[in-house]
Amino acid sequence: MPTEQPADLHLASTHPLGPDASVAAFPLGGIGTGNVSIGARGDFRDWELQNSPGKGNLLPFTFCAIDVRPADGAADEAVTKVLEARFPGPHEGEDGYGWGRVAGLPRFASAEMLGRYPLLAIDFADDRVPVRPSLEAFTPLVPLDPAESGLPTAVLRYRVHNPTDRAQQVTLALSLASPVGMDGWRHNGFPTYPTAPSVDYREADGIRGLTFTAAGPTDAFGYGTATLTTLHDDVSVKPQWLAGHWSDGVQAFWNDLTDDGRLEAETKESYDDQPPTGGARIGSLALHRTLAPGETGDFEFVLSWHVPNRHRAWDAGGELYDQVVLNHYATRFTDAWAVAGHVHEHLPVLEASTRGFTDALFDSTLPAEVIDAAAASLSVARSTTCFMIDNGTPEGQFLAWEGSFDRDGSCLGTCTHVWNYAQTLAYVFPSLERSARRNEFLTETDEGGRMHFRSQRVFGGSKPWDFAHPAVDGQLGTVLRMYREWRFSGDDQFLTDLWPKVAEAVDFAFGYWDPDGDLILESVQHNTYDIEFYGPNPLGSVMFYGALRAAAGMAEKVGDQDRAKRYADAASTGAKAMDELLYNGEFYVQKLDDVDAYRYQFGIGVLSDQLLGQFLAHLAGLGHLLDQDHVRSAIKAVYDHNFRSDLSEHVSVQRTYALNDEAGLILCSWPDGGRPKLPFVYSDEVWTGIEYQVAAHLIFEGFVDEGLTLTRAVRQRFTGRNRNPWNEAECGNHYARSMASWALIIACSGFDWDAGTRRLAFAPVVGDQEQPFRTLFTTGTAQGRVTITGESAELTVDHGSLDVAELVINNRSFIPDDQGPVPAGRTVRFTAA
Amino acid sequence: MPTEQPADLHLASTHPLGPDASVAAFPLGGIGTGNVSIGARGDFRDWELQNSPGKGNLLPFTFCAIDVRPADGAADEAVTKVLEARFPGPHEGEDGYGWGRVAGLPRFASAEMLGRYPLLAIDFADDRVPVRPSLEAFTPLVPLDPAESGLPTAVLRYRVHNPTDRAQQVTLALSLASPVGMDGWRHNGFPTYPTAPSVDYREADGIRGLTFTAAGPTDAFGYGTATLTTLHDDVSVKPQWLAGHWSDGVQAFWNDLTDDGRLEAETKESYDDQPPTGGARIGSLALHRTLAPGETGDFEFVLSWHVPNRHRAWDAGGELYDQVVLNHYATRFTDAWAVAGHVHEHLPVLEASTRGFTDALFDSTLPAEVIDAAAASLSVARSTTCFMIDNGTPEGQFLAWEGSFDRDGSCLGTCTHVWNYAQTLAYVFPSLERSARRNEFLTETDEGGRMHFRSQRVFGGSKPWDFAHPAVDGQLGTVLRMYREWRFSGDDQFLTDLWPKVAEAVDFAFGYWDPDGDLILESVQHNTYDIEFYGPNPLGSVMFYGALRAAAGMAEKVGDQDRAKRYADAASTGAKAMDELLYNGEFYVQKLDDVDAYRYQFGIGVLSDQLLGQFLAHLAGLGHLLDQDHVRSAIKAVYDHNFRSDLSEHVSVQRTYALNDEAGLILCSWPDGGRPKLPFVYSDEVWTGIEYQVAAHLIFEGFVDEGLTLTRAVRQRFTGRNRNPWNEAECGNHYARSMASWALIIACSGFDWDAGTRRLAFAPVVGDQEQPFRTLFTTGTAQGRVTITGESAELTVDHGSLDVAELVINNRSFIPDDQGPVPAGRTVRFTAA
Repeated sequence: MPTEQPADLHLASTHPLGPDASVAAFPLGGIGTGNVSIGARGDFRDWELQNSPGKGNLLPFTFCAIDVRPADGAADEAVTKVLEARFPGPHEGEDGYGWGRVAGLPRFASAEMLGRYPLLAIDFADDRVPVRPSLEAFTPLVPLDPAESGLPTAVLRYRVHNPTDRAQQVTLALSLASPVGMDGWRHNGFPTYPTAPSVDYREADGIRGLTFTAAGPTDAFGYGTATLTTLHDDVSVKPQWLAGHWSDGVQAFWNDLTDDGRLEAETKESYDDQPPTGGARIGSLALHRTLAPGETGDFEFVLSWHVPNRHRAWDAGGELYDQVVLNHYATRFTDAWAVAGHVHEHLPVLEASTRGFTDALFDSTLPAEVIDAAAASLSVARSTTCFMIDNGTPEGQFLAWEGSFDRDGSCLGTCTHVWNYAQTLAYVFPSLERSARRNEFLTETDEGGRMHFRSQRVFGGSKPWDFAHPAVDGQLGTVLRMYREWRFSGDDQFLTDLWPKVAEAVDFAFGYWDPDGDLILESVQHNTYDIEFYGPNPLGSVMFYGALRAAAGMAEKVGDQDRAKRYADAASTGAKAMDELLYNGEFYVQKLDDVDAYRYQFGIGVLSDQLLGQFLAHLAGLGHLLDQDHVRSAIKAVYDHNFRSDLSEHVSVQRTYALNDEAGLILCSWPDGGRPKLPFVYSDEVWTGIEYQVAAHLIFEGFVDEGLTLTRAVRQRFTGRNRNPWNEAECGNHYARSMASWALIIACSGFDWDAGTRRLAFAPVVGDQEQPFRTLFTTGTAQGRVTITGESAELTVDHGSLDVAELVINNRSFIPDDQGPVPAGRTVRFTAA
Repeated sequence: MPTEQPADLHLASTHPLGPDASVAAFPLGGIGTGNVSIGARGDFRDWELQNSPGKGNLLPFTFCAIDVRPADGAADEAVTKVLEARFPGPHEGEDGYGWGRVAGLPRFASAEMLGRYPLLAIDFADDRVPVRPSLEAFTPLVPLDPAESGLPTAVLRYRVHNPTDRAQQVTLALSLASPVGMDGWRHNGFPTYPTAPSVDYREADGIRGLTFTAAGPTDAFGYGTATLTTLHDDVSVKPQWLAGHWSDGVQAFWNDLTDDGRLEAETKESYDDQPPTGGARIGSLALHRTLAPGETGDFEFVLSWHVPNRHRAWDAGGELYDQVVLNHYATRFTDAWAVAGHVHEHLPVLEASTRGFTDALFDSTLPAEVIDAAAASLSVARSTTCFMIDNGTPEGQFLAWEGSFDRDGSCLGTCTHVWNYAQTLAYVFPSLERSARRNEFLTETDEGGRMHFRSQRVFGGSKPWDFAHPAVDGQLGTVLRMYREWRFSGDDQFLTDLWPKVAEAVDFAFGYWDPDGDLILESVQHNTYDIEFYGPNPLGSVMFYGALRAAAGMAEKVGDQDRAKRYADAASTGAKAMDELLYNGEFYVQKLDDVDAYRYQFGIGVLSDQLLGQFLAHLAGLGHLLDQDHVRSAIKAVYDHNFRSDLSEHVSVQRTYALNDEAGLILCSWPDGGRPKLPFVYSDEVWTGIEYQVAAHLIFEGFVDEGLTLTRAVRQRFTGRNRNPWNEAECGNHYARSMASWALIIACSGFDWDAGTRRLAFAPVVGDQEQPFRTLFTTGTAQGRVTITGESAELTVDHGSLDVAELVINNRSFIPDDQGPVPAGRTVRFTAA
């Protein structure tokens, strides 16, 4: 088995990043809460708490300072620094580093960041500082639990070790400009506040800290609160910095901190006659602790926020834009202080779940690149791309953009043809995918079965998203995903509720895309390349056969035997016909007499997505839709023709996601000539979502080496130097399609879970066969891990409860030592039958 | 003499920059024309042709491509690449490299850029390209001639060498989106056009090329034209790319170019039913030439522009903002085609002047860091910081911001206290400084002698710029600069015209700033730190004594003997009194009983600017204003206390222009304690303009080593990796104060020119005394160079005409071989008397 790592493989989750990883930004924040990120220097960046993306958003004078002085020493032995590594440059700027960046304060000589999402760790080092500080930061992530994974909070735990032989008095002082109440962001990254927010010190129930409150009515879109809290006993505080001219506030803060390592409240608001009414308000909270020689101590802050009010629309064009709809989290919590209370109270449990999940993933024997890719994909689910609104149910309504532009969402409506690729939610937060399916079939599928591929009526308006064509891949892929959700959850009521509309959507396909009834789709086929394919081609038809198989399975379950048979027959007949028509002996092509008769076709090119429907069918346990040998040949052809180990001489006039000596898989190539004059508009691009689906599919078909090589190629592009490891962009940051990477775990571990039969299966294809194989897994009710060692296996449940009727490993049944449902924390041993 | 170069000295003008010099941007464009810059990869960036700064402004699909194919070869031997080095990263972006960046086209493996302002040279290399291309680019710079140095044009001369043994058919195809007609710039750097500009091919008088014309009336603020022209014989052209959807246009362009290396016009505007009415319009001009084996050939493009209409105000708050005032260049040329015609016709002469000047500077024996700093300062004069408007005179009115923010001017009104430091214009374009003086004294100095330190009435309104206090350093420095301009030009009429107001401005100082009449200024003194000093301090008073000496000289010339005597006496008496009061044995301090009684003072700190007035006096040939030993001690103290060879542990909460292991001179330090709680707001900052004035002053006082060390410290911060070598920012890019660096040439060469006596003097203090000393120099009428070799000297005039009555070298008179005025191109030999 081919999983030896190349020596030069440096992944962000395995090799610490230095401050020169200038675009690394590790996102904190939960599902549907917005984010604040931490850079490789330990700096706060990309403040996005206000229900909108905000890449580049900075808060002025927001930094953690450390003050260290020997407990028995003189004042001049004190050292005070900003707890960030130095700026790596470029230092260019219209006014250098302007006010608010505090770039002129001394910083640490170096920092090393290791991001194993959702856990961030940064070690700081500086010869002039006698102690060794580090930062551990995370937002709780509880698998299968979007609510507890959707807390608007970030735990910031600074840990300081005293290696000296003297007791050291250590202060961690976190200064924060109000992260709520702004109405815009300037060119330099800093916010504008129409009216200054208030900031106050508060102490209750052992929780103490700062509360920021935006001015204005609580039902305004910009309203919100934020808190910086701690359970730490020994604190000092400067609840509000001097406001007013120039650098008065920061100079007074620094004078105060360096004077004795403790903070005092200012005695006036400003030295000016007229304190400003607008502008930032900054507060500082300092935690103190004396560390004995050799001692290590924690300094824990919790940042929480609560910006409840969203527009009831995707954007200003929406019907109900002027109405407020609550963030789902705002139905649980009244304000940020309430969030903080929940976090402080439940942090041990939340953290244990987070670590259980993270350990199961990162301590697995899966290839490092697979772990790296899959873990990073979790951050998409908790980025500004995804959100949850109040829909009157306890669960709320899940919604998503395709991605996030720097300052706006990108492409509205949980777009079916983009979300086709995404697997992470289906396995880690499956209830969110069910939420999407409910909406797609019950709200966005018209009478007659046409599905709008962007959800607009989900906000409550009456107008669907208006576009000339339905999306063939989106609509049919959604049927496959419906099957995936039902099979994984075993939620038969979910199936029963949606089935009539699922059947309509499938029936629609026959008439609309196959007017000649030959079961090969040939009419205008809008698709994920934002153009229309014409004539027979594998993208639409393979997805059709997958949808038919899935629908046949669901029809059988609901007792619609007619449809079950009709669909199954059509899948077989159609697949055979398509195979005959489009297979060219190596891969599947598009059949067009004149490839230039329409713009944006691909003709006899090798389309990387030609087997996308087959990929989804594998994930759903549906097996091969087409001749297995042809499928294997075709996916291998995709790799052979479209994977480039060096893109320096690649020619593309399109958007560029990989270049120079980077490797990547292009969307299409024409090894036999026949390139259209104007091929489809993304044909020469490289998209991580397609790379992952192809990589996983290669592994499904036995091309493990190729699949892992391709996966490594992707993640080597995301190492913090050139791209953020936690942001795979396509049309927008944190692009949903990139969540195809979770399929790599499924493919590598040969995982399958059928909730109906409670059959759990593994068939690992990676790792050293002489060594135990370990992987994380999820089912509809549990997250666990399994260790497989030849004839035996150990299965541990980290979260939830698992009731397995049959464990199958490499097609052999395994017998448990102990029967019955396995609760969280329990390990059960299995032996080969 | 201490001018041996440190081995690790890498300056942008001596060591070629690679593509990783990602913030290098070499500006093209003339005085008052706006700019387009070229990056170290050979890329076009920062399009600022529309009377406003625009850092980061990009034009979509704007690049030069090279196509090379053997004249006798097969089509598959052709190579086509974008003539830029590859992108160095980071490659992060919300949609990767978006449409318009064409980042997916193959580029050159490497490029090396050497910028010796105003001449840019870039060499490109790539193993796959059989020829060696380079780019030479410049905008003509004619010393003493702002008009010919103010052409809205850029010469782009690609030079290609064929080292192969086959004839190569070479095409240089430059594609350009309309650089005029936009109404805004998006987040991604690309423009928006309210209505599409037109683009046409035109040929007349041997000139051929593309003309872009903005839509809309010719008197609209956004109106303009641009041309891309050539005298090249063999051209092909695609006057307008396909407009419309996606990448149709660029795909069709690339298909066309790579097909046979030549371009054809498109046969339709768009493939869409409705061609868009807005959006960019792109055109391409290709130059063809077959290069024999070993042959080198030029491919010359001229880019010209004409955006005539400015707002008659600094900004939207201005009285006459809605009125149009013409750019001065628009009074010479009717449109861009007219500019292009002038450039093509006069290019040989313009280029000869440019090269004469550049060679005189760069081939001098001045220290490399002095040349580097002085040359870079020329780019400020031709940046968006400076401009010229039509005021009904042939010369026009010179105006300037303090600097340029990324998208707006920074701090209006040719601010007197900032422009105090700037020397470059005074020596290279002295008529512009005279233009400023006319305005300052005749328009901006009220009855009673108070001068508004920001010019606002210059646009014709009646309201001065309203501020509570006049600027002590600005107003008095302007008197010194008046003297400098008069003495350098010998323009007695200029003196006569302005004298009454000069005298009023001087007289005002006695009453306003010295109410107690002790000749030490002590009342509220607003100054260049944007705050007020209180009480006796050297900044205001030394400037006062310099102004008095200068005014005494001018009074004598105009026959105002009373004032001449009064001013001279006051200068002596005051200086003596101040020396006694403020000299602490090492340097000059501020006298305050309680330094914290007012915010923003410096007290007993070492102020880097304490001898700014002395610096200006030296430049004006006025000698020492104060005890010479004290002056020497004080300037040395500035260096000793305020120069930091490493700023890693420097503490500053202010703006940051130098940091980490960089070296720099801070504005103030407190070696003896006494730092105010809130010292003046820039006290901990590092400003190049002050570094240069201190460096030059150190050299004036004999501390040559220290002056050059400081100069090197500055320029080592501007090497393209961390900061743009042609952009020294302070409060804005291209900050005027940085033009203090030209004083380094004056100090190093001991240059002096008194137009009244026609006495020219040199007293070089740098270089190897065993070797000839060579320097560039200017007078009010000429630019020349001198080579001094012991007992003899050779003086060559490159531009203008020079009438020297006496040449003094190291205080010895030199006798010419040939009497009379020396015209351009003539060399005269001098021998020690």
